[in-house]
Amino acid sequence: MERAGAVHVHDFEDGGRDQLDLLGGKGANLAEMTRLGLPVPPGFTVDTEACRDYLAHGDLPPELLAEIDRHLARLEQRMGRGLGDPVDPLLVSVRSGARFSMPGMMETVLDVGLNDHAVLGLARQSGSARFAWDSYRRLLQMFGATVLGIDPHRFAEQLREVKSTRGVAQDLDLTTDDLKVLVGAYSELVEKECGRPFPQEPREQLHLAIRAVFDSWGTDRARVYRRQEHIPDDLGTAVNVQVMVFGNRGSSSGSGVCFTRDAATGDPGVYGDYLPNAQGEDVVAGIRNTVPLTDLGQLDRASYEALLEVMARLEGHYRDLCDIEFTIEDGRLWVLQTRVGKRTPQAAFRIAADLVDEGVIDLDEALSRVTGDQLGRLMFPSFDPFAQRELVTVGVNASPGAAVGRLVFDSETAQDWAGRGEDVVLVREETDPDDLPGLIAARGVLTSRGGRTSHAAVVARGLGRTCVCGADELEVDAAARELRTRHGLRLLEGDLVSLDGSSGEVFAGAVPMVDSPVVRWLEGGPVADDVVAAVATLLRHADTRRRLAVRANADTPSDAARARRFGACGVGLCRTEHMFLGERRHLVEDLVLAEEGAGQRAALDTLFPLQRADFVGILTEMDGLPVTVRLLDPPLHEFLPDLTELSVRVAVAEVQSTPDAHDLRLLAAVRRLHEQNPMLGLRGVRLGIVVPGLFATQARALLHAMADRLETGGDPVIELMVPLVATHEELRLVRAELEQVREEVEAERGLELACPIGTMVEVPRAALTAGRIAASADFFSFGTNDLTQLTWGFSRDDVEAAFFSDYLDQGVFADSPFETLDVEGVGALVRTAVEAGRLVNPRLHVGVCGEHGGDPRSVHFFDDVGLDYVSCSPFRIPVARLEAGRSALHRP
Amino acid sequence: MERAGAVHVHDFEDGGRDQLDLLGGKGANLAEMTRLGLPVPPGFTVDTEACRDYLAHGDLPPELLAEIDRHLARLEQRMGRGLGDPVDPLLVSVRSGARFSMPGMMETVLDVGLNDHAVLGLARQSGSARFAWDSYRRLLQMFGATVLGIDPHRFAEQLREVKSTRGVAQDLDLTTDDLKVLVGAYSELVEKECGRPFPQEPREQLHLAIRAVFDSWGTDRARVYRRQEHIPDDLGTAVNVQVMVFGNRGSSSGSGVCFTRDAATGDPGVYGDYLPNAQGEDVVAGIRNTVPLTDLGQLDRASYEALLEVMARLEGHYRDLCDIEFTIEDGRLWVLQTRVGKRTPQAAFRIAADLVDEGVIDLDEALSRVTGDQLGRLMFPSFDPFAQRELVTVGVNASPGAAVGRLVFDSETAQDWAGRGEDVVLVREETDPDDLPGLIAARGVLTSRGGRTSHAAVVARGLGRTCVCGADELEVDAAARELRTRHGLRLLEGDLVSLDGSSGEVFAGAVPMVDSPVVRWLEGGPVADDVVAAVATLLRHADTRRRLAVRANADTPSDAARARRFGACGVGLCRTEHMFLGERRHLVEDLVLAEEGAGQRAALDTLFPLQRADFVGILTEMDGLPVTVRLLDPPLHEFLPDLTELSVRVAVAEVQSTPDAHDLRLLAAVRRLHEQNPMLGLRGVRLGIVVPGLFATQARALLHAMADRLETGGDPVIELMVPLVATHEELRLVRAELEQVREEVEAERGLELACPIGTMVEVPRAALTAGRIAASADFFSFGTNDLTQLTWGFSRDDVEAAFFSDYLDQGVFADSPFETLDVEGVGALVRTAVEAGRLVNPRLHVGVCGEHGGDPRSVHFFDDVGLDYVSCSPFRIPVARLEAGRSALHRP
Repeated sequence: MERAGAVHVHDFEDGGRDQLDLLGGKGANLAEMTRLGLPVPPGFTVDTEACRDYLAHGDLPPELLAEIDRHLARLEQRMGRGLGDPVDPLLVSVRSGARFSMPGMMETVLDVGLNDHAVLGLARQSGSARFAWDSYRRLLQMFGATVLGIDPHRFAEQLREVKSTRGVAQDLDLTTDDLKVLVGAYSELVEKECGRPFPQEPREQLHLAIRAVFDSWGTDRARVYRRQEHIPDDLGTAVNVQVMVFGNRGSSSGSGVCFTRDAATGDPGVYGDYLPNAQGEDVVAGIRNTVPLTDLGQLDRASYEALLEVMARLEGHYRDLCDIEFTIEDGRLWVLQTRVGKRTPQAAFRIAADLVDEGVIDLDEALSRVTGDQLGRLMFPSFDPFAQRELVTVGVNASPGAAVGRLVFDSETAQDWAGRGEDVVLVREETDPDDLPGLIAARGVLTSRGGRTSHAAVVARGLGRTCVCGADELEVDAAARELRTRHGLRLLEGDLVSLDGSSGEVFAGAVPMVDSPVVRWLEGGPVADDVVAAVATLLRHADTRRRLAVRANADTPSDAARARRFGACGVGLCRTEHMFLGERRHLVEDLVLAEEGAGQRAALDTLFPLQRADFVGILTEMDGLPVTVRLLDPPLHEFLPDLTELSVRVAVAEVQSTPDAHDLRLLAAVRRLHEQNPMLGLRGVRLGIVVPGLFATQARALLHAMADRLETGGDPVIELMVPLVATHEELRLVRAELEQVREEVEAERGLELACPIGTMVEVPRAALTAGRIAASADFFSFGTNDLTQLTWGFSRDDVEAAFFSDYLDQGVFADSPFETLDVEGVGALVRTAVEAGRLVNPRLHVGVCGEHGGDPRSVHFFDDVGLDYVSCSPFRIPVARLEAGRSALHRP
Repeated sequence: MERAGAVHVHDFEDGGRDQLDLLGGKGANLAEMTRLGLPVPPGFTVDTEACRDYLAHGDLPPELLAEIDRHLARLEQRMGRGLGDPVDPLLVSVRSGARFSMPGMMETVLDVGLNDHAVLGLARQSGSARFAWDSYRRLLQMFGATVLGIDPHRFAEQLREVKSTRGVAQDLDLTTDDLKVLVGAYSELVEKECGRPFPQEPREQLHLAIRAVFDSWGTDRARVYRRQEHIPDDLGTAVNVQVMVFGNRGSSSGSGVCFTRDAATGDPGVYGDYLPNAQGEDVVAGIRNTVPLTDLGQLDRASYEALLEVMARLEGHYRDLCDIEFTIEDGRLWVLQTRVGKRTPQAAFRIAADLVDEGVIDLDEALSRVTGDQLGRLMFPSFDPFAQRELVTVGVNASPGAAVGRLVFDSETAQDWAGRGEDVVLVREETDPDDLPGLIAARGVLTSRGGRTSHAAVVARGLGRTCVCGADELEVDAAARELRTRHGLRLLEGDLVSLDGSSGEVFAGAVPMVDSPVVRWLEGGPVADDVVAAVATLLRHADTRRRLAVRANADTPSDAARARRFGACGVGLCRTEHMFLGERRHLVEDLVLAEEGAGQRAALDTLFPLQRADFVGILTEMDGLPVTVRLLDPPLHEFLPDLTELSVRVAVAEVQSTPDAHDLRLLAAVRRLHEQNPMLGLRGVRLGIVVPGLFATQARALLHAMADRLETGGDPVIELMVPLVATHEELRLVRAELEQVREEVEAERGLELACPIGTMVEVPRAALTAGRIAASADFFSFGTNDLTQLTWGFSRDDVEAAFFSDYLDQGVFADSPFETLDVEGVGALVRTAVEAGRLVNPRLHVGVCGEHGGDPRSVHFFDDVGLDYVSCSPFRIPVARLEAGRSALHRP
């Protein structure tokens, strides 16, 4: 970037909400509210370009500092007060404000401008020495920790010491003199830690605070958060410098957060939290418990009504739920921030549908405001209301859902236990940003302090974790690793607990769960509530908009039936290997142990009628809709006992002189078939070519099943899919065999049996040579699980535990490529294959049947790249339908 | 193809050797010789286009039949005889002739035109009733087997029966009456087997024979041969219809095959085989033993001299060794075929260099006439001349080399035993085309009948298999599975034998081997013979022509030293994992068993001085040349005991109450590190990122080794290579760590240590995103082994035994993609990566270090695609140098 004299500092009067990239979210909205004439304390924004320049070069250029000082001087002139003025000092806040909200991640410094002289002026002007010294104490503490990098616990220790010396419990009980002592102690601490005194020069304070906010963009916790939320790392943050207003100037002051609708349920009507005689930070930190917003009506009717007017004004202007931070200073309302509010999945659907009903937005816009992730979360089960349960306590219902897991008391333990496959519930007195990895690892989080706007609540909602917070009956003893209630109940680390994020209830033990109302509706049940009604409206609208068809991965008649109820228009992947499990496993043993030739043919003949019956079942459920049957894919040894276990059993039996003849024969076969890398071994089409009659038997069973259905008046639609093809020669060979089988069955049954034959594209070479393969294929179905494994060269089973967390931590990838399609690598192969395949065979039908078929972001890629359908597990079908509809909104 | 009236039949007078594609090899050379005025029996060629049309549509169109008949009529007119004429019949041969020679693979029908009437005319005209009836008998036998598909053994049975009835041993002892009886028996056999009599209409015979030749293009044995020889499957064959001349008309007649130089040794001077009173087919089939060509000088001086003149004329014209088939009919020489002759590797080098010395061709042309495959075969060891050995017999030295293996008596056994890893020697009385799979599977072949032009000899030379043929002291009893000599020695199936293809000697047992003279010369020894001198000349010329550099894959100082002697200009791949084997294996155990943190660091500290010493050794040997060191690649559990073995040991010890504490700890670690698919697990760069300090320790050891060498006046040149990179982020992270290590070592040693850092490109995603990776890479080295495994989705270890032979048999691939680079799939990734990488980083240095780096055909691809170097095992370096030179010949 050119470091020349471009304008990088903007007064609130000069911006607007269309400048999100430049001014960040907070700055743009402050500007917007200023232009609307709302009571916003004046100030200016240092923009994100300045931040990116700073991050690239490591310093604030003199031109920028001069520009900041010019804007500050104008602000001082306008307010008639000066930063650091010993008579009537101006105080400013210095807050971050990035393009995308990163709650709790970035730094803030308040009360900038105070020093040893100005504190006296503030005392005089405010008429409260206590307030002035408390503000100075807060500045030293915040600046020391944030800007100077001093361990915040050192300040907390000093505070505790003074309180204990003075014999008081609450900060509010400290006198002016106590606070002066504390200021002295803090100042000494700063000088000792930094080797220089606290900067008395107010402009230096401001410059350092701006720098510290910029620096906070690059902290580890911020990076982790951005990865989790898919926020690019190179945006940078803006900094907002704003005149301080004080909610902590007595009982006619206070701070709060409010929402224009209920962000948890979506219910209409305002709600929020208010904390009298407090700064906004006290509300967010959950240090004291808040009162409901409606109580403000009793405390200060005028301010309450002014706030209601602001709320109505903002929701009308933004045409969406707004989340507003405000402060009342001596009975005067100030709006410090607004943004389109975060919300639970329930609320997202409810609000979007309500706004359509209210005529505020249209259905397309409503659809754009809900996501497949949110719908997926609405499909989670919740606790069975009729199950036995032992209530421990009720806290604040801060993030919905139902979580069952073992209690852990810190982030590290949460990560460790979750890493070995345990479900955990993280319990903390209150959380801070360092707990983020634990919050990510846990199924749910429980805190004893803080309201619905506390750190734990905000982050849990963002992550889709269940959260109960402010459960103040609980005593969290992290050192002793136990949780105690007032009633004497004790829960230890490792004990099972259940959290209901919708009701705020906490139960001991594991409470059984029931399906969500959305799932019950999808299964044919009633529209149980407004949320289900909203889901139904938006899902129907998505169906009218989408170009992509949605099929299901279903291996059994019951899965197929559910998929159909959930809106699938076919089965995109019916895995036949699932038909060899359970009690039929011995059939594969027979096949493997049989001699080549007659023995194998006999084993296949036993399989035939069973497969035929399987297929009749699925074709019956999917009558009239296509069913894509994949021929046997896994290596045969997958159906046999594990080599190590069997070897141990045989060796031990030998030592004990109790050899088992069957085990010995089996061991020989298992050894013969053993593969170093089964994923890269004899499977898929290779098996079909090497084991004579295997694929033919499966095809014969399917074609007879089709004939059976036709003869009984059904409308079976089948497709045969060959797995793991790497070269057109494989498909050509197998296709010839399958077509011969079709001709034989047609002759035998006297019926025409239409049977398109296609292939999985799951080996990189298949994608690279898709043009040649397409000449023998009626359809392609991308097997993006295997394609991802081979393109990256790692197997999901082996690597997710071994190094994915390291890779996510170190930013090697932003998402697991097994969850969201790696567009750059795997996506390039998909795109190449679609284009080359269609060039050769313009009628080629193309879909995807890997797990990515139900992943919201991947669905958009598949739509862009021109697939005909996605196929996913039955429970992902509504998600895929919704996202396919949303994707269509962006199409011309 | 358009089936319209294009010209598809060509008289010999109208063609030439530039029409190989259209007329096939035999037809083009017959035309060429006709134009040179050599004594060629007249005839015409039905071209390859007609064959391709026939193969596509399954019939000969009427237009083509009419065209054939027109040419035949002209031939009859010119010869003054008619096909099937009862007074003076014309006889023609119908022979295949494809673009590339496929000896013994395709069909031939002789004596076409005879029938029950014409045989009488032939008897009168030739003055020999016996000759006429013998010719008719031959037609019935050949036509019956080839055109009508009757089992040839049925004819042999009839022949045996007549001979036994008449009490004679040799065919030649049968009288005219015997032959009439035989013709009657054969005619009955044909009628019985085909349901219709032998076709008496001569034009029908001709049409059917042409059809049969076309059909023989598609037989399984022809397909197998083409795959082996890399001949495309869609060329088709031409058919040559030529007036018959007869070598079997008495003692002044005969047939032979001759070469203008010795095709086995390359020695100048004619050589060949002659069989008096025989047709050419009798020579090739090796039914009777031939006499040396020089004997013809005594038998028929005039014909011998005429032949010498033809040979001189042809070698001069073709400027290369010619292989000529001739027949002498009643003292008159006819030339039936010529072609540039096949030759042994020795002869190829010798002849090419001699022709340069003789001023016939230049060095570029000489280089184009030898191949890396041939050079590779010259580097095979031969039998130690001083070793003890038991001579069994001496046969004809038909294809050079030294083969040791177990005796097998049929093709199936050869394939079976070779399939399970045994070296086998196939022994047969004589071979036929059905033995081809056995010849491919065997190390060598031994026959008791047939000369150097017999089927076994020709095919073995083509395949590079050792062959001793015509060992007529041996009695091959395939039914009893034993081999007997006249001296009473018996060798049974499974016994070890040794064949010396250069001397024709056969030994009992396994004779120890010694290095080839070429290898001794490469190692600094003398130019022992003319072949070594020729190799030296052509290798030097290749070095002056080639653009590609050739490096070595070498892990030890002694490998590096040999590579340097063999002409490597650097080490392209030094694998560091080989430094953790043997007695150092326990160091990895320590690393794995150590606690994270201090314990691991201690284990790495123990590795450091050992690695440093390893690197000093290699840098000393490669002084002045680059050494590319690959950081640790394999998963750590590869250095630990096998899970199954260890589990059995621990379980058995437990049952026997003798538990071993170390084993138990080890088992826990092995279980923890166990991977389902180690190839797709925690290895390569992933290990470097997950195990702190591992790569840094290796880099530190290398940089200190470099500094050590610099301080002692050496000229070390190093490169650090990161394995298994899939995304640019991995390389960026590791590069930052390695550069920090370099700065530290530079500071510590006070030296500048140039150390380019690059990556293997061996994961498909690395190739697909090469542009981004190139931004952090100084070089790419394609790891085509892993790249092939991942692009195809199979692991070499697991699949080669399981299905590669099926795949080769069924034509899924023509070559194993592990031996010759799969240009279509893997090659596409290589090309993409080179282009994208150079676009971003024009100074990017690019090479290959997979085994394909030493494969002749792959070298040409790597040259075409613009790599800077290939790196291969030391023994492949001369091959790569030669092929890189040959590749340069085609460049503008």
